[in-house]
Amino acid sequence: MVVEGKDAEQMAKEHKEISISEFFEKNRHLLGYDNPTRALLTVVKEFVDNSLDACEEARILPRIWLEVKPTTSDRFRVMVKDNGPGMLDKRIPKTLGKLLVGSKFYKHIQSRGQQGLGTKGAVLYAQLTTGKPTTIISSTGNGKTSFYELMIDVKKNEPKIISHKYVEDGRKWHGLKLEMEIEGRYVDSRTGVPEFIKEVAISNPFADIIFDGPEGRMEFKRGTNELPPLPKEIKPHPYGVELGIFRRMLQDTSSRSIKTFFMNDFTRVGSTSANGICEVAGIDPKISPKSVDRETTEKLFKSMKKAKLLRPPTDCLSPLGESIMLSGLKKEIEGEFFSAVTRPAAVYRGEPFQVEAGIAYGGKLPEDQAVEVIRLSNRVPLMYQKGDCAITKAVEKTNWKSYELKQSGSNLPRGPAIVMVHFASTWVPYTSESKQAIASYPIIIKEIKLALQEAGRRMKSYVIGKRKFEMRQKRRKKFERYIPEVAETLNKITNEDKQLIKAKLQKKAKEVTGVKISG
Amino acid sequence: MVVEGKDAEQMAKEHKEISISEFFEKNRHLLGYDNPTRALLTVVKEFVDNSLDACEEARILPRIWLEVKPTTSDRFRVMVKDNGPGMLDKRIPKTLGKLLVGSKFYKHIQSRGQQGLGTKGAVLYAQLTTGKPTTIISSTGNGKTSFYELMIDVKKNEPKIISHKYVEDGRKWHGLKLEMEIEGRYVDSRTGVPEFIKEVAISNPFADIIFDGPEGRMEFKRGTNELPPLPKEIKPHPYGVELGIFRRMLQDTSSRSIKTFFMNDFTRVGSTSANGICEVAGIDPKISPKSVDRETTEKLFKSMKKAKLLRPPTDCLSPLGESIMLSGLKKEIEGEFFSAVTRPAAVYRGEPFQVEAGIAYGGKLPEDQAVEVIRLSNRVPLMYQKGDCAITKAVEKTNWKSYELKQSGSNLPRGPAIVMVHFASTWVPYTSESKQAIASYPIIIKEIKLALQEAGRRMKSYVIGKRKFEMRQKRRKKFERYIPEVAETLNKITNEDKQLIKAKLQKKAKEVTGVKISG
Repeated sequence: MVVEGKDAEQMAKEHKEISISEFFEKNRHLLGYDNPTRALLTVVKEFVDNSLDACEEARILPRIWLEVKPTTSDRFRVMVKDNGPGMLDKRIPKTLGKLLVGSKFYKHIQSRGQQGLGTKGAVLYAQLTTGKPTTIISSTGNGKTSFYELMIDVKKNEPKIISHKYVEDGRKWHGLKLEMEIEGRYVDSRTGVPEFIKEVAISNPFADIIFDGPEGRMEFKRGTNELPPLPKEIKPHPYGVELGIFRRMLQDTSSRSIKTFFMNDFTRVGSTSANGICEVAGIDPKISPKSVDRETTEKLFKSMKKAKLLRPPTDCLSPLGESIMLSGLKKEIEGEFFSAVTRPAAVYRGEPFQVEAGIAYGGKLPEDQAVEVIRLSNRVPLMYQKGDCAITKAVEKTNWKSYELKQSGSNLPRGPAIVMVHFASTWVPYTSESKQAIASYPIIIKEIKLALQEAGRRMKSYVIGKRKFEMRQKRRKKFERYIPEVAETLNKITNEDKQLIKAKLQKKAKEVTGVKISG
Repeated sequence: MVVEGKDAEQMAKEHKEISISEFFEKNRHLLGYDNPTRALLTVVKEFVDNSLDACEEARILPRIWLEVKPTTSDRFRVMVKDNGPGMLDKRIPKTLGKLLVGSKFYKHIQSRGQQGLGTKGAVLYAQLTTGKPTTIISSTGNGKTSFYELMIDVKKNEPKIISHKYVEDGRKWHGLKLEMEIEGRYVDSRTGVPEFIKEVAISNPFADIIFDGPEGRMEFKRGTNELPPLPKEIKPHPYGVELGIFRRMLQDTSSRSIKTFFMNDFTRVGSTSANGICEVAGIDPKISPKSVDRETTEKLFKSMKKAKLLRPPTDCLSPLGESIMLSGLKKEIEGEFFSAVTRPAAVYRGEPFQVEAGIAYGGKLPEDQAVEVIRLSNRVPLMYQKGDCAITKAVEKTNWKSYELKQSGSNLPRGPAIVMVHFASTWVPYTSESKQAIASYPIIIKEIKLALQEAGRRMKSYVIGKRKFEMRQKRRKKFERYIPEVAETLNKITNEDKQLIKAKLQKKAKEVTGVKISG
């Protein structure tokens, strides 16, 4: 077989543009659709994330209804309904039928979604595996309801509207209902849908969640009416910006001078710092940002990186807080002791982050197993890539023997406990865009360990207190066994009333051994 | 702090379209630009892959010149020059300055590039970290040379031409030269640039490569003038196609009837199979593909999946072959024994693939270390995510004790050997788009193990032969030590010439212990 080589002309002819929808259709494992089991979980996760984000932004206590029902041996109908703000009728097609359209990509803000890929990815997966459109019903509370059947035109990455009605039905409801049929597999395991929903209920205890699955209905009642504070958007911090982005910011800014550009477009740059940056770079602070050439840009950039600035503000973060964490753990886990710790915020590469840790101990938790680790990132449970995640690594590197759990080497500790870690940040450094593991920056590992150590210390006090209490109880019981005999003897010697002696002795026993333990 | 909730209208206003360039700029770790060390390797890898792919398609024996030189403490100039077919002047901007433009995305063909992201990703990374354009010089052999300085307009995902000349200089050369400055870190380790280049030289021994790095120049001369056969493009196999894709194929086909659609647009569907598929689905084979509704599509799809068809052809693959593998190993590794095995092709999810294994043994290789594993995928060395890769897992699961190497449990074997595995496929199932690890499908693990076992058996014969030889040499030496004494005694007894007896005895010793070992 002789094959002729191609020349440049022939090769050029073969070049084609690829739409982003085509790209993710072919590379769907990148969005979490590697196999039917994980695909079902991913769809559920995208639906629930989307509803929780919308409710939180609208300051509504979420009520989410999720249905997962088999339609054939390898297909499922997945439906979510929420009481969120709903979507504007005319915006529904682009919001759900075009990849890479989103509101959070450009913002420095803590949220579940980041990229504008989640729900659209699910729509794409549904049509790829069952050929069917996604059904959307929505209202914003204006007495009208939108009905859509939607697909994605993969070659153009544009929404394809199969049917559409916008009906004035006078129903004053608001919320969103999504429904689709997908290829999937349902498992009830550590990486399955029920475990995911349970962890969502723990980490979002302000949400009412009903999950109607293949095995029946589960209800997760909200444990608190307190919504965590809405995270605030912040400007980028100079330390976290790269040269290419900095150049684009200079071109796009509406600020008139370099000085006001630094002050307005960044966080933590005041008038003095802005002047200082310009001075070190040898640039007049009054010139227009748009007039800056490449060489000057680089000078300003270097000088900005060297400037002494405050770390980014951290009040833009919205951790769960200790009381919400405790209420989540208590309502879903049958333990006997609970502790929760929220660390002060820290910073990596110009992005603020905050770590929280919770522990549930004892009760009905199994005695001699590796402890379960619940990993949360901006309130979303992480189900896959456990071994790759900074949270797992930090749990393993913590010395749990000091906190009364068993541990051999750098493995997960063993004992009747569940450990929960929440990582909140304006930009979570996931190891891949299926968002299942947090990258192991040293500062992140360190913060997680500090949170775990504090929660561990509290657990230890409880365990030691409990052990003392049990020991004293044992001693009291031994002592009490002899009280009648002692009372009898004392009665014979002193002639005091037998019952009185007995009561006094019993009171004394209680005083000496009755240690109260706190939980 | 009281924060007002947003309504649907406010939320809708915040929705923006994100360009694919912006997406990968922010998520650049997805393309292999997580940190400066890996970024430098990724740029080198994309440059070299691109040159090798172009030369191979044009059937040119590649000659590649690579330069990596520091410009500041944290920046490098990276330059590649090849003798490939060059690029058409007018096509250069889109080919190198727009993400997701490529020639291989839609093809079922074995190649290094797949997505149309590689070189453009490097252009993007350069401008992000140093703000500088990429320089391109190219000619197709027509006596004219193109000069470009190119950047990417990130917001539009369109090329931005900084400067352009197309000069009639009469130089009849063809090839491409790319040059850029990037932020990076140079390491000479197992995951560094020199190791990568060495592995490229081993797996592409038909290429001349000159690498001029920070520590001086290394030259890798080609070891063979034989190019591997050009891989052939194939049509998709019915077993590997999903419903959504099948629908689109129906809409886009130029075939007039369902029957010819099946025969023309798929591999392994002949006239009888096509009729059979239509019959089982209860559909007239003569109807037009474009007239098929959703329900009929699904019927045809199901019937197609159930049809008994031949597995996809495998002559579309282009393995290295045993002789090219041997010449690669021999020219770069100072071992004493080499073996190479090419397995017959196999199929996963409708995609054909083929596994090859090579072993270098002994010589100057270190005695008591874990063996080095060289992982190759469509002739590209894989440098990262070793633990996640099917190749590593298969090496660990092979019982190397049977092949005379040390091994404890399911760890990498120990001994003076290097193991090389090449995975060739029309669609490599990478675990992420930075293309560093192959997914562990059972059939893939099995094929790799079979190749390793065969290569292992050959190594074992050699090792055993060598051991026998050494033992006999030892015995001969012992024997030879007594020859003078024996000769003396025999001389006294028989009066034969002492020297003659001695020579005869020595000859005999050689005959008995002189086992020749093969390599």
